[in-house]
Amino acid sequence: MKMYDIIAKKRDGKELTREEILFFTKGCSNDTIPDYQTAALLMAIYLNGMTDNEILSLTLAMRDSGESANLSEIEGHTVDKHSTGGVGDKTTMIVVPIAAALGCKVVKMSGRGLGHTGGTVDKLESIPGFRTEITRNRLVVIVNSVGACMVGHSANLAPADKKIYNLRDVTATVDSLPLIASSIMSKKLACASDCILLDVKFGSGALMTDMGEAMSLANEMVKIGKAAGKKMAAVLTSMDMPLGFAVGNSLEVIEAVKVLKGEQKGDLYDICIELAAHMAHLTSGLPISECRRLSIEAIDNGTAFLKFKEIVAAQGGDTACLDNTELFERAEFCTEIKAARFGYISHLNTQLIGKASMELGAGRAVIDDKIDHAAGIILEKKTGDYVAPGDIIATLYTNDDSMIYDAAVIFDSAIEYADSKPETPPLIYDVIK
Amino acid sequence: MKMYDIIAKKRDGKELTREEILFFTKGCSNDTIPDYQTAALLMAIYLNGMTDNEILSLTLAMRDSGESANLSEIEGHTVDKHSTGGVGDKTTMIVVPIAAALGCKVVKMSGRGLGHTGGTVDKLESIPGFRTEITRNRLVVIVNSVGACMVGHSANLAPADKKIYNLRDVTATVDSLPLIASSIMSKKLACASDCILLDVKFGSGALMTDMGEAMSLANEMVKIGKAAGKKMAAVLTSMDMPLGFAVGNSLEVIEAVKVLKGEQKGDLYDICIELAAHMAHLTSGLPISECRRLSIEAIDNGTAFLKFKEIVAAQGGDTACLDNTELFERAEFCTEIKAARFGYISHLNTQLIGKASMELGAGRAVIDDKIDHAAGIILEKKTGDYVAPGDIIATLYTNDDSMIYDAAVIFDSAIEYADSKPETPPLIYDVIK
Repeated sequence: MKMYDIIAKKRDGKELTREEILFFTKGCSNDTIPDYQTAALLMAIYLNGMTDNEILSLTLAMRDSGESANLSEIEGHTVDKHSTGGVGDKTTMIVVPIAAALGCKVVKMSGRGLGHTGGTVDKLESIPGFRTEITRNRLVVIVNSVGACMVGHSANLAPADKKIYNLRDVTATVDSLPLIASSIMSKKLACASDCILLDVKFGSGALMTDMGEAMSLANEMVKIGKAAGKKMAAVLTSMDMPLGFAVGNSLEVIEAVKVLKGEQKGDLYDICIELAAHMAHLTSGLPISECRRLSIEAIDNGTAFLKFKEIVAAQGGDTACLDNTELFERAEFCTEIKAARFGYISHLNTQLIGKASMELGAGRAVIDDKIDHAAGIILEKKTGDYVAPGDIIATLYTNDDSMIYDAAVIFDSAIEYADSKPETPPLIYDVIK
Repeated sequence: MKMYDIIAKKRDGKELTREEILFFTKGCSNDTIPDYQTAALLMAIYLNGMTDNEILSLTLAMRDSGESANLSEIEGHTVDKHSTGGVGDKTTMIVVPIAAALGCKVVKMSGRGLGHTGGTVDKLESIPGFRTEITRNRLVVIVNSVGACMVGHSANLAPADKKIYNLRDVTATVDSLPLIASSIMSKKLACASDCILLDVKFGSGALMTDMGEAMSLANEMVKIGKAAGKKMAAVLTSMDMPLGFAVGNSLEVIEAVKVLKGEQKGDLYDICIELAAHMAHLTSGLPISECRRLSIEAIDNGTAFLKFKEIVAAQGGDTACLDNTELFERAEFCTEIKAARFGYISHLNTQLIGKASMELGAGRAVIDDKIDHAAGIILEKKTGDYVAPGDIIATLYTNDDSMIYDAAVIFDSAIEYADSKPETPPLIYDVIK
C-alpha cells in the first residue's frame, strides 16, 4: 500500500477502505508518512469530504493509535460529557456534580485551554491543591466511592489525532466536518465511557458559527458513537455570548459554586440543568422530564454542591474556598469597561472576549504559556441589557498590568450597540439522539 | 501576508492575487514555506483550479525565481520549440537544423530523460564529443554564425518550479492543467526566445492521455505565452505509438540522420516538416504552405543535413559518425521480439515501450542513474502492420544483459493484436495560435 495512491484516490472523490485509513493513521503515529503527504490528503478530504464509513474508520483508527482507558472495574454505567468549546464554558464543573448526585458514574477527561477558549483542567487547578493527574487505580476508587472524577487527558490519547490536528492547524484544514467529528470522537471513544453526551455549540464564540453545520456535526458524531456501541445524545446550544458572567479560571470556579449553591439562575443554570438531565437520562433510562426535575432538586436541596465538595476533596482540593469563595486569590490589577452611549447591547463578540481574557493572562497563546489563575473578566451586562454612558459593562482582572490596556481595547471592540432591544435567541436549539 | 491565508483562500475557490502568488513562489525558492503548506496549496489548486490571471502570475513568478537567458546579442528573432514529451521523440534533432537552414535563429534548451521518456540532451551526448554545456557568450557566437545551438537547461532555471514539481510528484498533484501549463511555460519564458512553438502530445505515451485535455493545455500555454509578449503556436499531435522506429539515444540520432538525409519518410518525417514549417512561419511571417514547401526542400537539397553537421561541429561533436552512422558504438547484446500469432498489431503501449527501453539502460529510473547510449529498441513493425507468428516486431539492444529478459517481457505486454486492420489516427490533430 502506498500513501501516494491513497491521496490520489481521495483526490478523485473515491471512498477509502478501512485498511487504507489504518495505513494512513499508523503512518502518522510512527512518522513514516511525510507531513507533506498528510497535508495533501487532508486538503483532499477537506474539499471532497468523507462517507460515514470513512469517518467511522478514521475515528476508530485514531482511537486505536494510542491507549484507551480501562474503566471495567467501575460499577455501573459510566457517562462522559463533551463540549465543542466556548468562552466562559464552566458547565463541566456544575454538570458533573449534579449527574453524580443523581447516581451517574462520571469519568470526565478534559483538556487545557489554548487560544481564545479556556480548558476545564486549568479552571479546576485554580482550586488550591486540586490534582488533575490521577492514576487509573485511584480514578476507579474515586468514581466507585464518590461517583465522579475530573482528570486531564492521558499523554498517549489518540496520538494520530494529535499529529493530524497539528497539521490541520497550519494547512487551513481545521474547519472540516469529517475531520472535526473524527478528532473529537476518537478521543471520546478512547476515554471509554458507556454513554456520551455532546454539547455542540454554534455562534460567534464556537468552532461552528453556523447552526446547520453544528447540526450536521452533532448528527455525525452521534452516528459514530452509536456505531461504536455507545449510548449517545447531542445537545445543540447557542454560543453567541459568553456563558454566565465570568471568564477566567478561578472566576469561573466561583461562578460554578454560585450555580451549584442555587445562588445564580439564568443561561448558565438552564444549560447545566439540561445537560445533567440528559446525562442521567442516558444512564438511567428515566424520562427526561423526570431527570430535569431531579437535577433541579439536586441544586435546591444542596446535594449537588455537596457532591462537588466530595469530588474536590477526593482529588486533593481545598474545599474551604468553595464554602467561602473570598478565600480564592484575587488579581492585583483591574479596570472597568464602561458603556460609550445610550442603548441596548446588541451583540458581544465572544471570540474577542476570549481573546481579551487570554491577553489578561487567563489563557495561552502558545502551548508553553503560563496561566494566571486569578485573571479574567466579570461581565456586568450582557446582550439585551440597556446601558447609559458610564455604566460598567465589565471588569477586567490581571496580575500583569502590562497587557491590561490592550485587553480593554479588544473587549471594547467586542461590544455592539443598538437602539432597540435585540431578540435573544434560545439557548438550547435541539437534542439529537 | 501569511501562507495560511493563501491556502484558505484557494481552498475556498477564490482568486489569488499576483502578490499572493509571488509570496508563495518566493517562499518555495528560499525554503521559508514548509513543504506541508505547499502540499496543501497544491491539492487545493488541483481540486479548485486557477483562473487565467492566476496561471499567468504563477508562470511569471516561477520564471522570475531564477535567471532568465539573455539573448539580446543574437541578431534576428529567436525561436524555441518544446515538446510535452513522448517515447522516441527525436524531433528536436531534425526540426532545429531544418528551421536553421530556413534562416531561423534557434536557441534550444532541453532537459535530460527521466522515467519512460528520454531527454534530448542525453540523445545529443551520444554523438562523440558533443557538448551540451555551453557558456552564454559561446552560445551567442554559435547561434549568430550557424543559426542554432542545442544546450542543456541552466542549473538556476525556475528553481521555484523545480521545488514545486518535486512536491507534486509525491502528493498526487502532477496531473493538473494550471500546474502543468505554468511549469512548462515558466521554463520556456526563462529561455527567452521571441517565438515559441509547442508540440503538445496526447495518447497512451503522453502526459495527457485525453485529446480534450491536451487541447485545453495547448490553449492555456499559448495564452500565457502571448500575455508574456511571445509569438506563440501549438501543434496538437498524437503519441499513441513511438515516433519513428528507434527508441534510445544513439539509435535515435541515427534515425534523425536518416530523416535529415531524406532516407526515411513516414510519421516522424511528417511531424518534423510540420513543426519546422511552423517555426519558420512564426519567425518569418511567410505563409505556412510556403514554409512547408521550404522545409521539404531543405531536406531534399541537403541543406538541413549540412546544417545539422555545422551545429554538431560548433558544439564539439564528431561529424564523421553522422556521415557514416556505422561508426556509432554498437550494443553488445540484443534480442528479438517475435509475433505470437497471425493478425494486425492494433496497439503498441508507448509507455510500456519507454519502460522497456529504460530497463535496457537507455533511460533513468532515478536522477543519478547512468545512461547506456547504445541501448534501446528498433521497431520492425508498428500499429496497423500485419504479422505472422515468428515475424520480428522489434529488436532490443543493451550492454547489460541482466535486464534484457525483463525488458522483453515488458515489451511483449505492450503489444495488442486484432483480426481486422485498426484505424490509424491522424498524427497532427490541430494547430492552436
